[in-house]
Amino acid sequence: MKHDVIQSVHNPLVKRLFRLLERKGRDEQGRFLVEGAHLVEEALNSGAEVITVLYDSSREMDPACRRAIDRRAGEVEVVPASAAVLAKLSETKTPQGIVAEVKKTEHDWNAWLQAAEERDYLLLMLDEIQDPGNLGTMLRTAEAAGVDAVILGKGSVDPYNGKVVRATMGALYRLPVFSRPLLEAAAELKRQGARVIVSSLHENSLRYDEADYTGKTAIVIGNEGRGVSRAVSEAADGFVHIPLYGRAESLNAAVAAGILIYEAQRRRRHR
Amino acid sequence: MKHDVIQSVHNPLVKRLFRLLERKGRDEQGRFLVEGAHLVEEALNSGAEVITVLYDSSREMDPACRRAIDRRAGEVEVVPASAAVLAKLSETKTPQGIVAEVKKTEHDWNAWLQAAEERDYLLLMLDEIQDPGNLGTMLRTAEAAGVDAVILGKGSVDPYNGKVVRATMGALYRLPVFSRPLLEAAAELKRQGARVIVSSLHENSLRYDEADYTGKTAIVIGNEGRGVSRAVSEAADGFVHIPLYGRAESLNAAVAAGILIYEAQRRRRHR
Repeated sequence: MKHDVIQSVHNPLVKRLFRLLERKGRDEQGRFLVEGAHLVEEALNSGAEVITVLYDSSREMDPACRRAIDRRAGEVEVVPASAAVLAKLSETKTPQGIVAEVKKTEHDWNAWLQAAEERDYLLLMLDEIQDPGNLGTMLRTAEAAGVDAVILGKGSVDPYNGKVVRATMGALYRLPVFSRPLLEAAAELKRQGARVIVSSLHENSLRYDEADYTGKTAIVIGNEGRGVSRAVSEAADGFVHIPLYGRAESLNAAVAAGILIYEAQRRRRHR
Repeated sequence: MKHDVIQSVHNPLVKRLFRLLERKGRDEQGRFLVEGAHLVEEALNSGAEVITVLYDSSREMDPACRRAIDRRAGEVEVVPASAAVLAKLSETKTPQGIVAEVKKTEHDWNAWLQAAEERDYLLLMLDEIQDPGNLGTMLRTAEAAGVDAVILGKGSVDPYNGKVVRATMGALYRLPVFSRPLLEAAAELKRQGARVIVSSLHENSLRYDEADYTGKTAIVIGNEGRGVSRAVSEAADGFVHIPLYGRAESLNAAVAAGILIYEAQRRRRHR
C-alpha cells in the first residue's frame, strides 16, 4: 500500500514512534526503534519482527537496506516522511534518514530453563550495568563468544535503549536476553546444578584463569563502580578476579566481561 | 598570587585554552585540557605538569580536588572564572566547573628503545584506531595489564582528545605512549629481536591462545573496520585471531585488544 509522505511531526504514527525513544514508551508498547540503514537492514535480515520502516523520501535509500525491505515486502509497513520527521525521531547528531520500529523479542524464561536442563550452558548475568555502551558491547561479546543467554538484573540500563542497540551490532536479535531478578535466577540455575562465578575486584578470589568453568556455568559481572551486590555475591559458588599489573584500579566493565567470558569459553572448549 | 575572576570568554587565557579543544591547538601548544574534578585531581596527583587550573568560582570545589591543588601550590596557576567561561571550555553536556591545562609528556623513543634492549618487554601497537572511546579504553587496559609502552601509528585519533583522556582513567599519565610510523617502529623493534604479532580477522592465523608471546613482543591491533594495514601485516612474525563462536562478524576493538593483551601477559607470567 502506497503512503502519502508524512510531513508533520504531529502525525499520530510519528508521535507513537517518538515515545519509543524513552524507556516508558518502549515498555508500554513492547517495541523499540532502530536508526540508520545498517541497523534497519540488520533487523530486517535477522528475522526480527519489524513493524514499520519510516524513511526520508528526499534522500536516496541505501541499496542493501532497500533490498532487505523488498525481501520482506508485505510484512512491513514502509512509510515515506520528511527530513524534519526523521530528525525528530533521531538520537544521533546527524539524522540517518531511516528508522524501523521493531517488536521486542519475548523469550520465555521457564521454557529456556527447562530446555537447558540437559545442556552444559554458559550464561552471563549482569548486575546493574549503567552505561549503555558497556551493556551493548557486553551483549555483542557474549554472542560472539557463544554464550547461551544473558540475564539482566534489576537496575540495569534498558537493553532496548538506542545506544545499547547500536553497540550490540545486531547481537540483540540473536542472543536470548532475559530481564530477571538475579537472586531468583541464580537459585533456579543452581537447582539445575549450575555454578555461579562472581567477578570480584578483590584479590582474595581465584585468578580468573585458575577457576573451573566446566559444566553449567553462570558468570556474574557487576556495576561499573560498585561491582556485584552483596546479595548476589552471597549466592556465589566462586569468585574470580583479573589481576591488575599496573597502577589502574579497575578495568572497563565491558573489557573485563570480554576477558572473563573468553577465558571461560577457552577452557570449556580447549582443555 | 590572587587572580580576579575571569568573566569574559574573550580573555586571552580563555582563548588560548579554548584552542586546546582542537587537535591543531594541542599540537601547536604541546598541551591538552582535562575537565572535571576527578580528572584534574588525577593529573595533579600523577605528577603530570599541570600549568593552569581554571575553576568556576560560583561553585563549591570538590574537597579532594582542592587538596590536590593545595599540595602543588606554587607550581600551578589557579584561576577563578565565571560559569560562562567554564561552559565555553566544556566538552560535556553538563560543564564540570573545573578544567586543567596539562603539558603533554614527551617520551624519548630512542632513549626508551635503548633502555629496552635488555628487557623482555610487551608492547601494544595501534594501527589507525578511530574511535576515541576505543583508544582510551585500550590505553587503560594496556596500563592495567602491565604493557610497557604503546605505539600509535599515523592516522590514529589524537591520544590527547578529551574523550580519549576521559576513557583512559588516568593511564595516559602512567604509560609511555609514542606516536611513530608503525613500519619504522616495527623494524627497530625487530632489530632488537622483538616478535611482531598481528591481530587478524582471518581464521588462517593461530588461535590467540596458541601463539608464543614470550620474549620481546609487540602486539598490533588494527582499525575498527579494516583491521591492520597490509604494509604493517607484511612486517608480522605471526598472526593471531580470536575465534567467533556466534554469528558476530567481529568483536569491539577495545575488547579484542583486552583479550589479546591479557592472554599474552597470562602466558608470559604464568607458564
